[in-house]
Parts: sequence; structure tokens; C-alpha cells
Amino acid sequence: MADTEPGFTDVNKLGEFKLIERLTKDFKLKNKSSKFGIGDDSAVIAHGDTHMLVSTDLLVEGIHFDLIYSPLKHLGYKAVVVNLSDIYAMNGTPEQITVSLALSSKFSVEALDELYEGIKEACRIYNVDLVGGDTTSSPRGLTISVTAIGTVDKDKICYRSGAKPGDILCISGDLGAAYLGLQILEREKQLYLSNPGIQPELENQKYLLERQLKPEARKDIKDYLAEAGLVPTSMIDISDGLASDLMHICKASDVGAFIEEAKIPINQDAQLMAIKFQMDPITTALNGGEDYELLFSIKEEDLEKIRLMPSVYIIGEIVKKKDGITLHTSGGNVHALKAQGWDHFDED
Amino acid sequence: MADTEPGFTDVNKLGEFKLIERLTKDFKLKNKSSKFGIGDDSAVIAHGDTHMLVSTDLLVEGIHFDLIYSPLKHLGYKAVVVNLSDIYAMNGTPEQITVSLALSSKFSVEALDELYEGIKEACRIYNVDLVGGDTTSSPRGLTISVTAIGTVDKDKICYRSGAKPGDILCISGDLGAAYLGLQILEREKQLYLSNPGIQPELENQKYLLERQLKPEARKDIKDYLAEAGLVPTSMIDISDGLASDLMHICKASDVGAFIEEAKIPINQDAQLMAIKFQMDPITTALNGGEDYELLFSIKEEDLEKIRLMPSVYIIGEIVKKKDGITLHTSGGNVHALKAQGWDHFDED
Repeated sequence: MADTEPGFTDVNKLGEFKLIERLTKDFKLKNKSSKFGIGDDSAVIAHGDTHMLVSTDLLVEGIHFDLIYSPLKHLGYKAVVVNLSDIYAMNGTPEQITVSLALSSKFSVEALDELYEGIKEACRIYNVDLVGGDTTSSPRGLTISVTAIGTVDKDKICYRSGAKPGDILCISGDLGAAYLGLQILEREKQLYLSNPGIQPELENQKYLLERQLKPEARKDIKDYLAEAGLVPTSMIDISDGLASDLMHICKASDVGAFIEEAKIPINQDAQLMAIKFQMDPITTALNGGEDYELLFSIKEEDLEKIRLMPSVYIIGEIVKKKDGITLHTSGGNVHALKAQGWDHFDED
Repeated sequence: MADTEPGFTDVNKLGEFKLIERLTKDFKLKNKSSKFGIGDDSAVIAHGDTHMLVSTDLLVEGIHFDLIYSPLKHLGYKAVVVNLSDIYAMNGTPEQITVSLALSSKFSVEALDELYEGIKEACRIYNVDLVGGDTTSSPRGLTISVTAIGTVDKDKICYRSGAKPGDILCISGDLGAAYLGLQILEREKQLYLSNPGIQPELENQKYLLERQLKPEARKDIKDYLAEAGLVPTSMIDISDGLASDLMHICKASDVGAFIEEAKIPINQDAQLMAIKFQMDPITTALNGGEDYELLFSIKEEDLEKIRLMPSVYIIGEIVKKKDGITLHTSGGNVHALKAQGWDHFDED
């Protein structure tokens, strides 16, 4: 589409985050209960000492998922989990979801049964209740809108904005696998499209494929943190990629940060597959996204509390804003980090 | 699409309400805070004496709106208002909304600015805060998902399920105008498509067009009710049409009802336009939908409290289930009511 037309600015020019900033900049919060609006993993609604958390995501066929390789049951599961992840990223507990669907006539009732099987499984595993939604037809394809609602004690809430220089940066698990899972699926899709008789080569990549098709949210981290008596100074879930999500924390907290390349956890299957795809494993970890691990910062004095926490890795440190956001390579170099995460407007 | 294919049941066969029933029947509420799930205007989440209300709607281009005649600013306004209406229909006060968009590359940043102007205007008029959302691209068209969040005192909440035989049925305003507004817009669209030089004949139908393009939710009714010290025994907003929405109340309350044809309020412009379109004005009022008036039932002993309430009309009565759901015509006949409201799956 021509964006030289007067009055027609292509949304790609702005990108998702700048677009949201532009569209919402004049909206001021007026209600006392509106504690926090746009700009974190969830909105925060205050009623007494318990804060409500609300987060919402829209998944669009052809943009966020491809039904050639996404089984509907997994898709239903994932649509719920990615929203719950946003509640956990505030140190909260999700309790309810709403699910809305717009679907074309190519979807049968049986197909929807499968999708809801996955939604139900996610509700069971994460102990959340489906409390509402809307179901309508669509001229083409499937769109899924999920809203997750949760609670958090007001003194345990973790925004993106509380990180201070000297804080330790932690990650709850390994990165890059979901992105490599997607690469495998895309490769097999292309092979299948050029030769429908071919058998897909998926059997040895269970971990990578599951990280992509049926990810889990880190519901255990809030419990570990509570047991340790620890409240992170900031937290976010890795949906766009470590680099991009770290930048969200740095921007919201008005700080810089460094990550030590050697400390970034990468699963062995992901390492090998990255090399097979002639990609740098670190790049897939930094920019891959969809890992749904939690990235958080803690005060230095809380270091002892985290050391023995299961599956938590220390990967870097918060620094002053003027020191920038950098990667310390294993070879001793310092690189400025760039966000190359998912920006769905790039894919148009 | 062939629905004779084994394992392929066309969703049109079921319709929206049966489909939702089928998909969600095995979901049981587990969390103490999940007070009420699917099956009313909003979900109810309990925290102390204030209950939270959550309602969500998905608007799809080509199904719920047509950009040929829907100005984007009005569309943004309407997308918010129809959700707020669901909160008012529980006797609640909306306080927050989230807005998610999926949009194709045909939408410029300026177009989105306009859409958000309407969203902002609705936030101002109804005193709600935009607290979150998600913005993504779409292969085609525009999809808008709005979630509204509100509060209600737990002893003032109005479900659909509390109507009892002998209760009086009331409606907050006139019906049918939004549907006739849509008929005018569709007629002018067809004329325009066959002869783009033609001027649309819209000027004298401001009321009908506004009811369709820029409807208002009845935010005043909860205040009138509070002033009168009155809590309806059941309430719903008219989105699908009086007949269909009355059936929702009857089903949830396990009762029947009758409506007096002569008492159904119809605006004079709507009367005239219905006749011009060779439609029965009563049919447009019963089945038109999108009026966003509130239909509610009150105990007979509360009749005095309602008599002088502005813009509230008494239209019928709740009866025993075995007596059915009927229309008492002006000519003295009794007809069984049929729901012919919007079922978006019929339009595929």
C-alpha cells in the first residue's frame, strides 16, 4: 500500500509499540480503582489490599499461528497460556479467563471442540475458570481473543518499572527453543507444500516443538519467590525475545543493563538446531521470543535467596541508563543490544 | 462448505447460543472468586462486598460493521458502548476497558487515530479508563475486541435469572430504531454501489442513524434505580432484539412472560420508516436488536417506584413457564413469541 498518499501513514513505519504509544497517549486514568493502565504485562485494578490484574491478547490466523502445523488443541492451550504468563509476570495468580472467537465457515463444530479441549486443559493445569467470551463468525480465518484476570497482594506486585542500578538480572529458564521449533515447522511446511507425499522430520525435536506449539507459563516462580520471601524489583515475561523484553524493563525503569553471553541458558537441542540452521544460538536466545520464561531483577542483597532457587539463572545486572543496554560476549567484547523481536506489523 | 462430510458439523446448524453451550458445558468454576461465569451479560468476580463485572465482545469487519457507512470514530465509540451496556445490564458501573485490534495494512495510522478518537470520547462520556489491549496485524480487515470491567455492590447485582411469575416487565426506551437505521444505510449502500454519483438520502433520519452508528448505553438507569431504592429481579440489555433477549431472561429464570403489543415503545420516525420499508413496526421492535435499552423485571409491590421513572415503560409481565412466552396483540390475540434476533452465524 502506498504510504506516500497524503494522510496515509503506514503502521509499519511506526511499529507496534510506537503505534500504541501514539494512540493511547491522551488517555488519562480517572477512576481511583485504575491503579495502572497501559505499559506493563497487565493492567492493575485496585480494590482494597488485593489488586486485580487484567491482560489481553489477540491471536490471528496467518499472523500468530498456522493451522498447517498447529493442532487446534495445542492452539487453544497456547492462547490461554500466553495470557496467563502476563499475570505471572506481575507476580500474580490468574483466576479467570474470557475467550472470544471469530471464525469462518471452514471451522466445524468438531474443530471447535478440539480447540476448547486445549482451553479446558489449560484451565485445569493452571486452575483458572472460563467465565465469559463472545463467539461470532468471520469472513476469513480464525481470531482468538483471550483476557486473563488475576489477583496479587498489593505489596507483592512486580511492575517493569522498579529495577535499580546494581540489581541482579535473572531468568527462569532456557531461551531460543520456541523460535527454533518454529523454524523446524516452517521448514517442514515448505517441504510438504512442494511435495505433499513427504514425511515430516519432527520426531527427534520434541522439546523444541513443544516450546513452540504448547508452551507453559511459569506458574511456579511466584511460589518460589514467596517461599524465599523475595519480591523482584521488576519482572516481565519473554514473549518478544530477551533483548526486546529487557529493553521494556530498562525503558520503564529508566536504567541500563548488561547481559553476560556465557550465562544465557540455552537448551542443548536448541544449540544443535541453531547450528544446523546456520544461526548463532545466542541470537536465537536474544531475539527468538515466545519462550514465556520470566525475566526479573532483584536487589543485590537478595542474591542468597535466589542462588538455590530451581531453574533460575543469573544472567546480568542493571546499570545506570547512561551505560546503555549491552551484551558482554564470551570473548570479552561489549556490544550494544538491539531488539529484533517479533513486531507483527513487520510481517504484513 | 459441505456439512455432510463425516466429522464436519456446520456451526450454523447449532447457532451461536447452542454452540457456546456445547463448547463450555464441561467447564466448572473452581476459584472461590468466580461467582458467575458464562450465561449472563457479564461474568461476576467476587472480592469482598464489591463484585467485579467482566464482559467482552468481538466486532468483525464485514460481520458487525461495514466501513462503507460506519465512520471510524463512531465505530470506536460503538465498540466501547456495546460492552459498557453489558455492565449496566448487571446494574453495575463500568470503570475500565481494554481494546485489542487486529488490522490489515489498508488501515493507516490516521485511520486508527480516528478510531481512537471515538474510543476516547466514549471513555470520557462514560467515565471509564482504557487500561490495556493488544494491537496486531491481520491478513484482512479489522477486528476489534473490547473487554469492559466494572463493579457492583453484591446486594444490587441483577442477573438474568431472578424473574418470578407476577413480576412486571419494563424497558428503558424505544425499540427498533437501530435496526431501521441499518436498513437505511444498507439501502443507500446498494444505491451507491450501483451508481456512485448518487447523493445518499440520510438527512432526515438523524435519530435512526445515530441509534445504529453511535448508540448510547443506559448509564442513567442504575442511578434512577438506586434513587428509587429498587433492585430489579432480572435485567438484560437489548442487543439481539426484545424477543430474543426476553427469552434469555425466561430461560435463565425458568419462567414465561407476556408482552403487550400496544405497550412496546416505538419512536415515531421508526414507525414511519418501518412502513416505508413495508415492515411491521412491532416486528422491528421485537427482532431488530442493537437498541441497547435495558429490559428488566421488578416485583409487583415495587410498581409505584417505577411509575414516574423517566423513560421507563411497562410492557408486560412474567408468568409461569407453562404459560409460555407470548405477545398480546392490540387486536386481542395471543401469539407465541419467536426469537429472530441476530445470530451472526446465519450470515456466513
